[in-house]
Amino acid sequence: MLKTLGVGVRRVASLARNPSFAKVEASDLRVFESICGQNYVKTTDIESYKTDWTKAFKGDPACVLLPSCTEEVSAILAHCARRQIAVVPQAGNTGLVGGSVPLYDEVVLSIRRINKHFEFDDVSGIMTCDAGIILEELDNRISPYGYMMPYDLGAKGSCMIGGNVATNAGGIRLLRYGSLHAHLMGLTAVLPTEEGTIVELGSAHRKDNTSLHTPHLFLGSEGQLGVVTRVVMSTAPRPASVQSAMLGVDTFESCCKVLRLAKRHLSEILSSFEFLDRETMIVLDEALGLKPVLQSNPRFTLLIETSGSNEAHDSEKMEKFLDDCISSGTASDGVQAKSIEESSAMWRLRESAPLAVAADGFVYKNDVSLPLKHFYRLTEEIRARCSSLAKRIVTYGHLGDGNSHLNITAKESSKELYDSLYPFLYEWVNVHGGSISAEHGIGQLKLPYATLGKSPKERDLVRRIKAVFDPKGIMNPYKSF
Amino acid sequence: MLKTLGVGVRRVASLARNPSFAKVEASDLRVFESICGQNYVKTTDIESYKTDWTKAFKGDPACVLLPSCTEEVSAILAHCARRQIAVVPQAGNTGLVGGSVPLYDEVVLSIRRINKHFEFDDVSGIMTCDAGIILEELDNRISPYGYMMPYDLGAKGSCMIGGNVATNAGGIRLLRYGSLHAHLMGLTAVLPTEEGTIVELGSAHRKDNTSLHTPHLFLGSEGQLGVVTRVVMSTAPRPASVQSAMLGVDTFESCCKVLRLAKRHLSEILSSFEFLDRETMIVLDEALGLKPVLQSNPRFTLLIETSGSNEAHDSEKMEKFLDDCISSGTASDGVQAKSIEESSAMWRLRESAPLAVAADGFVYKNDVSLPLKHFYRLTEEIRARCSSLAKRIVTYGHLGDGNSHLNITAKESSKELYDSLYPFLYEWVNVHGGSISAEHGIGQLKLPYATLGKSPKERDLVRRIKAVFDPKGIMNPYKSF
Repeated sequence: MLKTLGVGVRRVASLARNPSFAKVEASDLRVFESICGQNYVKTTDIESYKTDWTKAFKGDPACVLLPSCTEEVSAILAHCARRQIAVVPQAGNTGLVGGSVPLYDEVVLSIRRINKHFEFDDVSGIMTCDAGIILEELDNRISPYGYMMPYDLGAKGSCMIGGNVATNAGGIRLLRYGSLHAHLMGLTAVLPTEEGTIVELGSAHRKDNTSLHTPHLFLGSEGQLGVVTRVVMSTAPRPASVQSAMLGVDTFESCCKVLRLAKRHLSEILSSFEFLDRETMIVLDEALGLKPVLQSNPRFTLLIETSGSNEAHDSEKMEKFLDDCISSGTASDGVQAKSIEESSAMWRLRESAPLAVAADGFVYKNDVSLPLKHFYRLTEEIRARCSSLAKRIVTYGHLGDGNSHLNITAKESSKELYDSLYPFLYEWVNVHGGSISAEHGIGQLKLPYATLGKSPKERDLVRRIKAVFDPKGIMNPYKSF
Repeated sequence: MLKTLGVGVRRVASLARNPSFAKVEASDLRVFESICGQNYVKTTDIESYKTDWTKAFKGDPACVLLPSCTEEVSAILAHCARRQIAVVPQAGNTGLVGGSVPLYDEVVLSIRRINKHFEFDDVSGIMTCDAGIILEELDNRISPYGYMMPYDLGAKGSCMIGGNVATNAGGIRLLRYGSLHAHLMGLTAVLPTEEGTIVELGSAHRKDNTSLHTPHLFLGSEGQLGVVTRVVMSTAPRPASVQSAMLGVDTFESCCKVLRLAKRHLSEILSSFEFLDRETMIVLDEALGLKPVLQSNPRFTLLIETSGSNEAHDSEKMEKFLDDCISSGTASDGVQAKSIEESSAMWRLRESAPLAVAADGFVYKNDVSLPLKHFYRLTEEIRARCSSLAKRIVTYGHLGDGNSHLNITAKESSKELYDSLYPFLYEWVNVHGGSISAEHGIGQLKLPYATLGKSPKERDLVRRIKAVFDPKGIMNPYKSF
């Protein structure tokens, strides 16, 4: 059985431990110690490695391995493949779906010590670095050269670039900089073969058409294919000017019109287009005491950010955009941040939304992509269906990317509410052309629904690709797509 | 033997026709006719399908098939897989490496009639379309909504989106919009199995982490995996203002400094950073009568383009950038285009460079990526090595992407010059961390060198991935990576 841990009723598949996986024995630990050194094979004090960030998933790993380099990873995986020992690769362990912790006794292979190598070309903006370096640290290292990491996550202070590759979360500036597919150029990976095969895939070039573009297969692969130990990617020029504004809008249709206007007026500097409904504003106030920036209590609040190289230009563009929104009647209210403090107040509302719903009660979180015409219809459907069972139904998200975070709170975990929500919600998303996991991935949480909208032919193809990389099926087992 | 056709001495592998491929018989033609209709199975008047754009490669296809939809492609590939008939998929046939024509009697499957379906969401900018639609037509269709195709190639008037996916050429605005990896979201492909498997991979969402990101494997796959029949991708807001400027620079080191300054001053609006050396300017004048824009006869000429949403802002940024380049002494000369005519005159020089070298004599073309520190060293090495045998050695290219088009011209095709150039040039590129094919791909032209810099382990991985898609090895054979 997958773990439920009493923090939520989860409809999960009944998966028994796969008996074909070997149990780790004392002799295996000695082999691991000979590879990593005694201090880096842990069997005690490993709570943080066995439990996921949400505390909903907890495994019982036979040991935690902390190799320091690609070669040590290779020796570990070779041994595990020969012995048929299952392995869960782990980076910052900040995922939200239980993907980076074991179900049973799988060995945790942490990449956090693989963090020495760092190279940066300040003319091309191309970076080569070890996979265990923390995202924020990379951003800090390239900042003096006028560059920035082209994505930003709430977890940036602890997530690692190798984990970012494996999960491919989009973050808040995907609208501007694209996903990691836009930036990844090459990587070093260790495959779980009896040889511990080390492959260097791709290159350090923006343009290179000399083989299949295999590095991109690792994006969002959730540790199913191998262990990424080094990453080569492009970075973005760091903006000299960041502007923020909030708009109040009365209908969802008008929100889409504002997005059109933002693309026209802000075009190349538009970096975020975030969405909060009135219910989000209420829970921000009630749970955290955060007051809205807009005084008119609009049905929807939009947070728009620009990132550019010239403050006067960006500010003028933003003013014209806001003028057009208001004078055309598309928005009913609007405020342009005139200081860092005002901008921070706007972003605090958006960034605190997850904390506010968590403080409100037990939360059923969702992370779905939807065509814009259905984006808010899902919230309305769930409201019509579940209002009597839920405490609150609130939606915020990355409207510019079609990514909705619909949250349903309740006083406490409720099987009745869960059964009313799922699988209805996922099936509704699927029927309306959406994705049940926009950025969080599948992991353990969404495994029972991972087949929704996927044809048997696609799933078969994916399984056979996985088998090319992981012929023994030992990498992050039980969670295969 | 690969064809040489007398237009150039090509060092090619000796590949015999693979006897395991069936010869197409009258009964096969009848099956194809029953699938596509009699008019769309051609055995005569097929010159344009059997010869590649460069005229250097010519096959002798048993027939050319022109299916009109995914289902017809499926029926064709199912029959070919059952009969072990080899297939070369072909889109606009504008490639430069002989990748889209047969070596022997492989059937040509043209996607040009798969061009009906077109859907566009003008809020999200997401497009879904048949793979046989021409790039320029797609650009024209989305232009009225304020969007543009996020890449631009010289072949845009005849290349097709399905071929763009299969070849992944970068074009002249990759610096700003990224490669197709930044835009591709989903596709429909037919796999060459006995069932003619149709798979819909990916989705129509910017964010979707619910499976392996298989669509990206098709980018640059050169028809090795299957036939792409439909593409889902994001497009870019169409710029309202395009500015151009030319700078004269005395050293290559200063060219890199100008690139740094361009990233700082032009940042989000920088869309092209093109490079022409003095030898390119001379051949433009002598072969085509095109005079340089800069009067100072600089060692290197840089062409910089911006694409933005506000003409006044963009023009001001460009002026400041040019001022900084000149006042700091980084550039010795500079001109900002003040009209479309002036801008066209600048671009005419860059875009005519391939025609000028072609008019100059027999050309050995190259398309390599190099780390910037080695970018122009290659030209100098070749000049030192081959000047006595060559007529001219000229370099132009996409400096912002590290992509050099080094051209060596001669009065006529010369085995001595060829042997002096190759494999030396490719090996030099490989040793200096470059790619021997930045955007043109491998095809037939570079097949003998496709293993350079690729480890046996990587090649084995790629071969096994190919076998997952094409278990019988009938897709675009002889040209596998």
